[in-house]
Formats: sequence, structure tokens, C-alpha cells
Amino acid sequence: MNFADRLVQAIKEKGSPICVGLDPHFELLPEAFKKQKPFEAIWNFNRAILDAISSLVPIVKPQLAFYERWGVEGMRAFWETIKYAKELGLLVLVDGKRNDIGSTAQAYAEAYLSSEAGGFGAYVDALTVNAYLGSDGIRPFVEICKKEDKGIFVLVKTSNPSSGELQDLELKSGEKLKEKLAKDLALWGQELTGKSGYSSLGAVVGATYPEDLQSLRKLMPQQILLIPGFGAQGATAQDLKTCFDQKGGGAIVNSSRGITFAYREKEYADLSFTEAAKRAVLAMQKELTEF
Amino acid sequence: MNFADRLVQAIKEKGSPICVGLDPHFELLPEAFKKQKPFEAIWNFNRAILDAISSLVPIVKPQLAFYERWGVEGMRAFWETIKYAKELGLLVLVDGKRNDIGSTAQAYAEAYLSSEAGGFGAYVDALTVNAYLGSDGIRPFVEICKKEDKGIFVLVKTSNPSSGELQDLELKSGEKLKEKLAKDLALWGQELTGKSGYSSLGAVVGATYPEDLQSLRKLMPQQILLIPGFGAQGATAQDLKTCFDQKGGGAIVNSSRGITFAYREKEYADLSFTEAAKRAVLAMQKELTEF
Repeated sequence: MNFADRLVQAIKEKGSPICVGLDPHFELLPEAFKKQKPFEAIWNFNRAILDAISSLVPIVKPQLAFYERWGVEGMRAFWETIKYAKELGLLVLVDGKRNDIGSTAQAYAEAYLSSEAGGFGAYVDALTVNAYLGSDGIRPFVEICKKEDKGIFVLVKTSNPSSGELQDLELKSGEKLKEKLAKDLALWGQELTGKSGYSSLGAVVGATYPEDLQSLRKLMPQQILLIPGFGAQGATAQDLKTCFDQKGGGAIVNSSRGITFAYREKEYADLSFTEAAKRAVLAMQKELTEF
Repeated sequence: MNFADRLVQAIKEKGSPICVGLDPHFELLPEAFKKQKPFEAIWNFNRAILDAISSLVPIVKPQLAFYERWGVEGMRAFWETIKYAKELGLLVLVDGKRNDIGSTAQAYAEAYLSSEAGGFGAYVDALTVNAYLGSDGIRPFVEICKKEDKGIFVLVKTSNPSSGELQDLELKSGEKLKEKLAKDLALWGQELTGKSGYSSLGAVVGATYPEDLQSLRKLMPQQILLIPGFGAQGATAQDLKTCFDQKGGGAIVNSSRGITFAYREKEYADLSFTEAAKRAVLAMQKELTEF
């Protein structure tokens, strides 16, 4: 089944549009894990988090940087994590923001999206991609998405303070760079449209820029939006209103530290880190459905 | 010693501005290697290539996609490759085009540039980076470069056919996106300027756009340019003229397949793949010095 359709179905089944980011900052791990070696620490922590949240959310998003951070051992922990997430029935979105040209983009697409190529792809459903290199850096990903029912999320407007330095630049045509890219994406994604009406080529738009969420949503009606910046980065549920469709679909909202490291917050101080993560998901879910 | 200074010195010592790209496309490997498992095939091939070319060039550039392509085993081959390249006295530039925000950019910087963090950085001198996320995605890399004498090369104008779709867009201000980014880079790089006058924050500009090489060089006088697109992608030495300074410094010219897979070319058909690689480096060197 087309990735977009699988995601729409999983959101419906779990009754939640939450994506849990698995970003194992070593220094934020509970003390018991910090005493372990990187592979054991990361994998044991992630496994416990996955067990805690797998029944509550449709999708998880490991951020590759925090695994590459520990070299080959970190990549082993990444591998075990995505394998286990799939065993638990979760969709796996790898946050790598990969980008390159021609045959190299092809190699990245095979690495993370092909189930048969011998890389990580057997346990990955979708990958984040950076489009600064233009359409021939995106094409190889689209081809594999089509062939193997996988997905990509292309960066349009990121959630960080300086994202506007390039993304908000006004072009001679009158539109902004992010808008031009959003229009390109809407076209590129057409051939990946599923029965749900959504495309397996989605877009990343940060929750921290609510006006962009509204305007970019209009330019990309078929794109599922991956929305980072909720929680730790300061955005609220009210800010996200405009990006969901009438059935509550069309977007996934990511929270990483806000969930996995909830145990560090005062309100969850009496709980185990897994119970804290679970409560944080439920609290976020409540917040998202009440706006 | 500052990365830019180390690179300038190595270029002088080897009498060559050539960067050999280590992109082990599996299907292009000699038959004997294709029979091996991914780790052995890639590592054995790379080791032989490194032995053949290490006395001739200052720097090598493994392209991460071709290692990630084979999952954890590929990353093990990457690790052995960079370790061995350093043992042979080569500078190692990792082509990963990484990009992210805040603490995640920090994790990438630690992964690939910190010698002490327990990732790949002990055997890496520099990393390619994508700046679509703006300056706060670049800052963590600059900090580690400053602290640990490492370098980054930021994508400005890539060598692929569709690179202009975003990079050549004309802004309201009258300049093009790549020009605006080039000016930003020139500023960001100032604090990494070495005794050579060059900055450890370099820029990627494709050889396939000679006019851009000329104009972007002027906007970035202190940036060492990493120039892909020579050879397999069609650019010639004449096209590169304008990017070197009067002493022949200020740029490194990359060739990947044109060297590592030279054995597949008619003119080298009678030679071993290592001898073919060596001859291809010497032929490229001759071409570059004769323009």
C-alpha cells in the first residue's frame, strides 16, 4: 500500500497524529544508561521508550545525527531501534535530511528506502530530504518511493530561528523561496498520490511559524506535513490548527525531547522515564484534540 | 594547525590540488570484489586505491551515501577507510552534506569533526554541509572547527543539471540565491581564517558551471573551493582556471569515478585497477597544470 495511505490509516487506527522523535542525546539519558557503552545505552533506552509508546502513536522518527554521533556503534543502535520499531508495528520515518545528485542520491534512496538493497531500508518507511540541489536530487527518491511504497518529507520551512535567512528570501517573481519550493513539491508529489488523496512526498514545515503553516498548507494541499517544533521548541496546539484537514488528517506532529525525556520535567518527576514518556504522549494528544 | 593551513600545506607538498573521491559503487567494482561481502569488498577495494594514490594527492573524499548504502557493514567499511587514509598521511574530507538545527547540527559536528567525542571525527578533517537551514545550522560546525582545527565545505552551487532550480533563482534584491549564500559564507568563515589567508570554512562550487566559478570566487576570496564535476561529469581544466590563486592554491578539484574506476576506460584497459587509478591521477594532474 502507498506510504501516504499507510500513514493515514495508522493515524486513524491509533487515533493520534503524533510522531515520537527518537533523539538519544546521551547527556539527557537517565543515569543508569549513561553508565553503559553507547550501543547498549541507546538501544536499551530506545527499546524501553518504544515499548512504552508503541500502542499510542502511529510513527516514530529516529534522528540519524544522534546515532552517527557514536560511530559504527551508534549505527548498530540505530539498526536495532528501527528493526524493533517495525516489529512493534510502528511506521519508521528516518530524519536524515539527505541530499545529493544523481547516482549518489540514488545510493541514499537505496540505503534508507529500498527493502531489498541490503542497507537500512527494510525497516524504514520514509526519509527526510533536503531539496537545495533541485529536482534531479529528488527524482531517485521518488522512483524508489513509487516502486517500494515508501515516502519522503522534503524540507520547506524549518523550525529554527534562522530558517528564514534563505527560506524566507523574496524572489524577483514576488514569491518567497519556501513558496516556490512548496509549489515544486506539490507537482513532484503528484505521481505518488494515494487513495487517501495524500501524496507519499510530504513536506516539513515547522510549528514555530504558524503563518507559514497556513499559507504553505494552501500551496501543498496533497502533502502530509511533518511538523517539528512542538513542545521543546515552543509551539502550541493552537498554532497547528490550520494544517489538519476536516477529518483531523494531513499532518503529523513531532515531539522528541518533550516525550522521551519527559522524566526530567517537574510534573513527571515521580515517574519512571517510560511512564513519563507515556503520560507526555497522552498530554500532547489531549492538547492536540482540544484546540 | 588550522585546517585551511594544513590543506594549503598538503597541496604544496604533494604538488597537486586533486581530491580523490572514494565512492564505491558496488556494481562498478572489479569482478573479484563483487564476489565478496559488502564490508570486505568496499574496504579491500578502498585500501588498494589508497595505497596506489596516497603519495600523489593531498586529500580524499569518501561519499557517505555509498557506505550507508550497505547499512552497518558499510559504515564499518567507512570507518576502516578513513582510519587507513589518516595512517597514510592523507587529509580526509567526508562528503555527507549534513544539515540540521541547533543541538542536532551539534551532534553531526561531533560525529564527524570532533576527535574526542567517540564518533568518526578522530579520522576526519572536514565535512561537507548544506546551509538551507541558515546560520544557526552552521554555527555548531564552526565552533568545533575552531576548537579542533577542522573544516567544512558549504554547498553553494552544485554540479548537477538541476542545481539552478533553487540556487540560480533571482532575488528581489537583484542578486541570485547562490550569490547571497556566497556572501554569507564569506562572513561566517572570517573567524576561521588561517595564516595562509584562507578560511577553514570552504565552499562547494561545481566545475560544470565555469561562469559561476568565476563570479562566486570573487565573492568568496578567502574560501577554499571544493570543485566537483571534473572528469565523469564533463568539465575540463580550462573551466577551472579562474578559481586558483596565483600560486595555484585556493581550490581542490575532485574526481571520483574518473580515478577509482579508471580501469573501466579503454585507455587503461591493460592495467590493474590500482595502476589505472595512479595513471588517471597523473593524467588529471598534467591536465590541471597545463591549462
